[in-house]
Amino acid sequence: MSDDEVSLEAGAGGLEMLKLLKESVFPSIDLGEISPKIGVREMDDGAVIDLEGSEKYLVFTTDSHLVKPRFFSGGDLGKLAVSGTINDLAVMGAEPAALSSAMVLEKGFPRDDLERISESMGELAESAGVPIVTGDTKVVGEGDVDGVMVNTSGVGICEELTPASGLNPGDKIIVSGNVGNHGMSIVADREGFDFDIESDVAPIHRLVGELKGVGGITAMKDPTRGGLAASLNEMASASGVDLEVEKGDIPIDSKVEGAGEMLGIDPLKIANEGKVVLGVESSCAQEALDALRDEERGKNSRIIGKCTEDGEGRVILNTEIGSSRILKTPRRKPIPRIC
Amino acid sequence: MSDDEVSLEAGAGGLEMLKLLKESVFPSIDLGEISPKIGVREMDDGAVIDLEGSEKYLVFTTDSHLVKPRFFSGGDLGKLAVSGTINDLAVMGAEPAALSSAMVLEKGFPRDDLERISESMGELAESAGVPIVTGDTKVVGEGDVDGVMVNTSGVGICEELTPASGLNPGDKIIVSGNVGNHGMSIVADREGFDFDIESDVAPIHRLVGELKGVGGITAMKDPTRGGLAASLNEMASASGVDLEVEKGDIPIDSKVEGAGEMLGIDPLKIANEGKVVLGVESSCAQEALDALRDEERGKNSRIIGKCTEDGEGRVILNTEIGSSRILKTPRRKPIPRIC
Repeated sequence: MSDDEVSLEAGAGGLEMLKLLKESVFPSIDLGEISPKIGVREMDDGAVIDLEGSEKYLVFTTDSHLVKPRFFSGGDLGKLAVSGTINDLAVMGAEPAALSSAMVLEKGFPRDDLERISESMGELAESAGVPIVTGDTKVVGEGDVDGVMVNTSGVGICEELTPASGLNPGDKIIVSGNVGNHGMSIVADREGFDFDIESDVAPIHRLVGELKGVGGITAMKDPTRGGLAASLNEMASASGVDLEVEKGDIPIDSKVEGAGEMLGIDPLKIANEGKVVLGVESSCAQEALDALRDEERGKNSRIIGKCTEDGEGRVILNTEIGSSRILKTPRRKPIPRIC
Repeated sequence: MSDDEVSLEAGAGGLEMLKLLKESVFPSIDLGEISPKIGVREMDDGAVIDLEGSEKYLVFTTDSHLVKPRFFSGGDLGKLAVSGTINDLAVMGAEPAALSSAMVLEKGFPRDDLERISESMGELAESAGVPIVTGDTKVVGEGDVDGVMVNTSGVGICEELTPASGLNPGDKIIVSGNVGNHGMSIVADREGFDFDIESDVAPIHRLVGELKGVGGITAMKDPTRGGLAASLNEMASASGVDLEVEKGDIPIDSKVEGAGEMLGIDPLKIANEGKVVLGVESSCAQEALDALRDEERGKNSRIIGKCTEDGEGRVILNTEIGSSRILKTPRRKPIPRIC
């Protein structure tokens, strides 16, 4: 493929995507630069807009979802679309307020599947307390879309931002549970393996809400495309610090670990859809960990590392056998599309 | 095609779409019902959310754009995506504040085209004063999307709502200029006819803003999918009134009229992308008309009819030869996709 065309590798949420955006998209569309607004160029999970005459911020985010298979162990396209956008709002520090749902359907798409996906979205939005308030539906010809595509955008309100760029030297890094389950589940379902791995797809705004009383939270991300590795690199790079992470402290299901070895996929580099990774001031780290562990969804939370110093945005991974290596952002599409 | 599958006719923004949504989508996902919030089921141009502790509302809207050709007389996909969402906010009575842009790209899509579309979005967002603050970009395999798809969502703030449902008996109906140009331009470009018709695609928030000082505005819509006919029917039906519209008073370019006759397409039933249709109290109608005509984009504004009485939501079209007929919402996809 020539450089004049968009490559599939650009779609994995890694460095190739960053290159595409920096070369072909950002020069034109980055316009939102009012402090402390966070705009497109920051590549955070959402944008932040001042609410005039208020000390609160409006957080605004968008995501397109096209996962295949549409129904997988632990979830489906609808659950993914609702959770993904709620989580993007939550990790910016916002209380999610409302969602939109824009569906593009291929002619001939089964009505049963449409209803299952809609039900899944509706039920999850209701149980999460974040209503779907507006939508758009389009139907296109055969071959113009692969079955169905769902874009969910969301708005939320927050008082205290937790952007990816907030890390300071000395901060501890926490992940809220076992990583790699979503990505590995999707690959297994698609490839016909029976690893008995369930996606972790779920809204995490209530889990994140538990941290509000703790204080000292400096940065948050949800480790979706590109997995934990991509999120850690984004946080380190945006904050201008180096991170030192202990491989042995990162919680991973043994089934995920085994499947990863068999398939040659690093669980640190594939998507999670119900986890949060955060930075917290050292003095608040234990309290933050306890708050997360109080929730069922956060019971496997672990401190996995720390910010060492002002740095070049590197993530250093100390392995269990005493060696160290740089944990990089996945450069290429590691596996078929998982969100 | 069986009833178990999504049909192409459901994509035209007419009655077939309404049926699909009512049967397969709304039963699950309509959850936003806090007065005076406007939610999914109202099918207005956007949702309305109370801003706690403020007399203002947050308006939130979403739209997916897949027009072919992507570059057409008078505009392109990027201009359409930015204008469409700004206009949905504007006709709800909101001041557009910010946009999101979620692109799905097919592997192999030309980088040149991506850059042209991004530039078009960026330039228009800048000149409109409505920044693109957040985005998402995904790349999918060949055949998983037809080239490129752009979802734009938007947020705006308003003090006074102008929902489709606000019409009262006696109100005058105004359209802000000649209708049918966008739809007819797209068809002409696609079919290779040279009718010399330009799309009217443009943001109308400043035109609509001119009405703020007038008062008496009871309802607004932007007549996109399904054209003026669909918008008039939506307003009549949502407001529980009948409308009486004079065919001879509806401004239409002679080129659009001629192309419509040749192709068998009713200019009242195809999309506009830079127009507004509104209801205004009779006593304010002339002033509203004058305000619109002061703007270049509104100079062909006309009063085209009135609300007759509480009714069944019918739109009665009086023709120039003295007869009357019911102007219905287009039932089927009248032409290939135009937005």
